[in-house]
Amino acid sequence: MESDKIVIDESKYIQQLSIDCVIFGFHGEQLKVLLPKVKQLELWSLPGGYVLKKEDIEAAAQRILEERTGLRDIYLEQFYVFGRANRSTGETLKKVLLANSIQIPEDSWVFERFISIGYYALVDFSKVNTKIGIYDEACEWHDIHQLPNLAFDHAEIIQKALETLRFMLDDKLVGLNLLPETFTMKELQILYETILDKPLRRDNFQRKVLTMGILERIEKKFTGAAHKAPYLYKFVK
Amino acid sequence: MESDKIVIDESKYIQQLSIDCVIFGFHGEQLKVLLPKVKQLELWSLPGGYVLKKEDIEAAAQRILEERTGLRDIYLEQFYVFGRANRSTGETLKKVLLANSIQIPEDSWVFERFISIGYYALVDFSKVNTKIGIYDEACEWHDIHQLPNLAFDHAEIIQKALETLRFMLDDKLVGLNLLPETFTMKELQILYETILDKPLRRDNFQRKVLTMGILERIEKKFTGAAHKAPYLYKFVK
Repeated sequence: MESDKIVIDESKYIQQLSIDCVIFGFHGEQLKVLLPKVKQLELWSLPGGYVLKKEDIEAAAQRILEERTGLRDIYLEQFYVFGRANRSTGETLKKVLLANSIQIPEDSWVFERFISIGYYALVDFSKVNTKIGIYDEACEWHDIHQLPNLAFDHAEIIQKALETLRFMLDDKLVGLNLLPETFTMKELQILYETILDKPLRRDNFQRKVLTMGILERIEKKFTGAAHKAPYLYKFVK
Repeated sequence: MESDKIVIDESKYIQQLSIDCVIFGFHGEQLKVLLPKVKQLELWSLPGGYVLKKEDIEAAAQRILEERTGLRDIYLEQFYVFGRANRSTGETLKKVLLANSIQIPEDSWVFERFISIGYYALVDFSKVNTKIGIYDEACEWHDIHQLPNLAFDHAEIIQKALETLRFMLDDKLVGLNLLPETFTMKELQILYETILDKPLRRDNFQRKVLTMGILERIEKKFTGAAHKAPYLYKFVK
């Protein structure tokens, strides 16, 4: 359709630099990642885009995430810069542009290698609404164990983000709003086990999180059977 | 002098992107940072430079560090990307270029804001030899408590690198070669205290590092007074 034609003014952007966002979603016992699907191709990619010449990179990351997924005001953090000389190929991008009826000269910088700044976030996927961007025909949560066909080195970018998330989990936990206001030790352990993707010993886990000094113990959860009721906790502000 | 004239082919590089290296040096009870001094200006900067269009960024970081400081084969790690819209001004750069007799057109991209990828390393400053680069008139170690007049946002970049170094110290310690092959608990504590810039309680420190599982205890150090001799340790490989 003629109305689908997209014009990109490539001169507005810093050449050969992009941002890619890895948005992890946790809920129940599932860890997922948010992936737009390129129009008319069996190809998924991270929500990414270019940085304007005079734009703050933090603002660029927020703008790109919103354009591709509809998500706003997500706390994004840088985790790594991907800059191998052979990391992106013009061939894949040409297919994407063709599928989107985007016309760009063959000798444009957009077909060169990109250096991409990776940002990541962890949200409760049941609490956010996603929206399809103009380049995409879908924007969906995928289980991290069953990733689809991904563009460029995006599988590697997701893996690196996941390592960072696991490494930083203790430090980020309190601010993430991934649990109800009060929760049981069991619920917290499931969160850790899901993100770390391994079972944890209950006694070791409990000792560890209690020494972190981030939890406040409240009354027992009411279950009708008081002697078996678990304690409830909340995060210390 | 005519022979000092430097020609830069700016078209070889990715526009508005740079790398800055924060090289920390530890020895004795001192923590320093390595800073080149711009020719004829009372201005110091981090060793930085541009990335070639088809160059791996890791290779670019190594090349830039060597060009500006003479250091080779240093284990550099990314720690943050600095990309505020107003972080670098063309005015400072114009002074630097003038002082170096570098001629670049007034409307060149080099006077725009740069997005800079920060790399850092920690070395034993008594074990490395530095060399002055072509843009600089000095390349010296400065105590981190007494930094000179720094270009752009380089003071902020050093601060962020220092936070990363302190946060990562436990994880990086073994590979850093900052202590002799065998060392006392006291020597290890001084390293921590110098980098963290605060006194640590001896018993707490000892308990903490012993539970990290990175130390192997060897025989007592020979001092002539056996009952007071401290134990020697080495890192577990």
